[in-house]
Amino acid sequence: MNSVNHQIRLAARPSGLPKPSDWKLTAEPVPAPGRGEFVVAISYLSIDPVMRRLIDADYREPVAIGAVMEAGAVGRVTASEHPGFAVGEHVYGGFGVQEFACSDGTGVTRLDPLLAPLTAYLGALGIPGLTAYFGLLEVGRLREGETVLVSGAAGGVGSVAGQIAKISRCRAIGIAGGPDKCRWIVQDLRFDAAIDYKAQDVAAALQEYAPGGVDVFLDNVGGEILDAVLSRLARGARIVLSGGLSQYAAQQVRGPSNYLELIAARASMAGFLTPDYTGRYAQARTELAGWLREGRLISREDTLQGGVRAFPDALLKLFAGQNIGKLILAV
Amino acid sequence: MNSVNHQIRLAARPSGLPKPSDWKLTAEPVPAPGRGEFVVAISYLSIDPVMRRLIDADYREPVAIGAVMEAGAVGRVTASEHPGFAVGEHVYGGFGVQEFACSDGTGVTRLDPLLAPLTAYLGALGIPGLTAYFGLLEVGRLREGETVLVSGAAGGVGSVAGQIAKISRCRAIGIAGGPDKCRWIVQDLRFDAAIDYKAQDVAAALQEYAPGGVDVFLDNVGGEILDAVLSRLARGARIVLSGGLSQYAAQQVRGPSNYLELIAARASMAGFLTPDYTGRYAQARTELAGWLREGRLISREDTLQGGVRAFPDALLKLFAGQNIGKLILAV
Repeated sequence: MNSVNHQIRLAARPSGLPKPSDWKLTAEPVPAPGRGEFVVAISYLSIDPVMRRLIDADYREPVAIGAVMEAGAVGRVTASEHPGFAVGEHVYGGFGVQEFACSDGTGVTRLDPLLAPLTAYLGALGIPGLTAYFGLLEVGRLREGETVLVSGAAGGVGSVAGQIAKISRCRAIGIAGGPDKCRWIVQDLRFDAAIDYKAQDVAAALQEYAPGGVDVFLDNVGGEILDAVLSRLARGARIVLSGGLSQYAAQQVRGPSNYLELIAARASMAGFLTPDYTGRYAQARTELAGWLREGRLISREDTLQGGVRAFPDALLKLFAGQNIGKLILAV
Repeated sequence: MNSVNHQIRLAARPSGLPKPSDWKLTAEPVPAPGRGEFVVAISYLSIDPVMRRLIDADYREPVAIGAVMEAGAVGRVTASEHPGFAVGEHVYGGFGVQEFACSDGTGVTRLDPLLAPLTAYLGALGIPGLTAYFGLLEVGRLREGETVLVSGAAGGVGSVAGQIAKISRCRAIGIAGGPDKCRWIVQDLRFDAAIDYKAQDVAAALQEYAPGGVDVFLDNVGGEILDAVLSRLARGARIVLSGGLSQYAAQQVRGPSNYLELIAARASMAGFLTPDYTGRYAQARTELAGWLREGRLISREDTLQGGVRAFPDALLKLFAGQNIGKLILAV
């Protein structure tokens, strides 16, 4: 077993997208677990849009300069002094961008590797899948027969959200960038329609694909796309905000100038954070895993190689919109 | 009785605030009621922020060029061929900016002049009061003990909203422009605090007056004020949009750039239109009239003289923020 723990730490607060010099690669001995702790060898790291927000000075609890970058990850317990976690078990937790993590079990869940491949626990069975699940079904109060729109539709959250909409007997329309992503969500994921925001006028396309207006919009992109959708709301529409990828690295956030359309449409725009539903993760995972097994839900992960050293590039790849499916870094 | 009906018609679509040449004064004979119709002599016209939106080309059903400008009004029936409305009765309806209107009764309600002065039916017992009532109690789901913030707090909607918040045992904070308005809402209307947005930093003032954050914000102003409030939301906050006065005449609407704060606060922003609650107006009016009688609710109207000719100036006065209380034009 490797005895060195490589880590990526925040070296400086970036303006815009982080440069290589905003990160620092460090090496430490692999920690030994104290009483009530265990050590995890990390297998896969989740690369998420919100990571950009986590390192902003004005974020509520930003990652400190010099601290290991925060990240959700799956791995295997390699040493344990904790009664609840045994060596060899697979776990998910906020272990950070490093090769080994020491944990007291807070926020850590045990995974069943027989139910689905480990990477699915960062995708459809992980925070992205749970975000789609609670965002649409709870915050969005999705009802059968409605028209559902998702942005970032080929990404981790969006790809699952559109499929949950179809499973819920709704019409699913996805917004994604480029023909490959659009083809994938329609042909493989069975969305009813895809809008390529790089090639099409989103408002005009919605007029065609959703002539009665959009009932539920799960948005993790924001910016011009959100503005276009605001002009195409059905009466009583619900916009669910799970993020704002397009605005995270912006110097000046672009507020939705069409927000007064919420009045005419008697619509709402609501934000939420997935961890508020922690108590219901198990129930939701069971349902999502059932759909996966039945082949009604496809979890696609775009897994990069290169270990923690490749993290800075992996994050830039996410913001360049180069991934199809949930972006993951193999450690 | 006067036999000429003076009217204000839309002559051109304004850019920004309407100029005198965007309106046209016309004179017609007073109409005679057809079968199933009645004629109303208009006493008072309601001057409302939304009037600016009604004349925008991109509004859903804008006032047509050459048409009488839309306006809510109270008046008295002077001639009737309608079984439901008798000569002498006092009524409220969307009669338009004119001295006499012919109506088939659609959207017209009978008023009780003994319950309150007629002008109150354009204020606390009219659309402004009903907007405050349904906006806070229904859309905002106000609960006892919460902190309520209203913008345009010395205006028709805001002044009633803050008082309903106090009646509902909530903490009421008002945002208004200038010391006179701020003094009035605190001393006469018993708001807990007032923020003068012309002299104070709204976000900093909220930190002082609402240290635990804002639970419900009834906003009819938008712009920078909405952005400031977004940074001071309590968890689970509800922003209720009843208008966007500051943006109605803007060339480029300023979207709320802090909208992603809705995520961190698990908050929502919802729009509504008061006429959706028409079926419950009577119940709400009874409750509002009860509060008026008991002296717990003050309806203040700022009544301009000058008849329909004075309408163009009256509208500009509203956008200049010169009124305290509901702005009304006596005909």
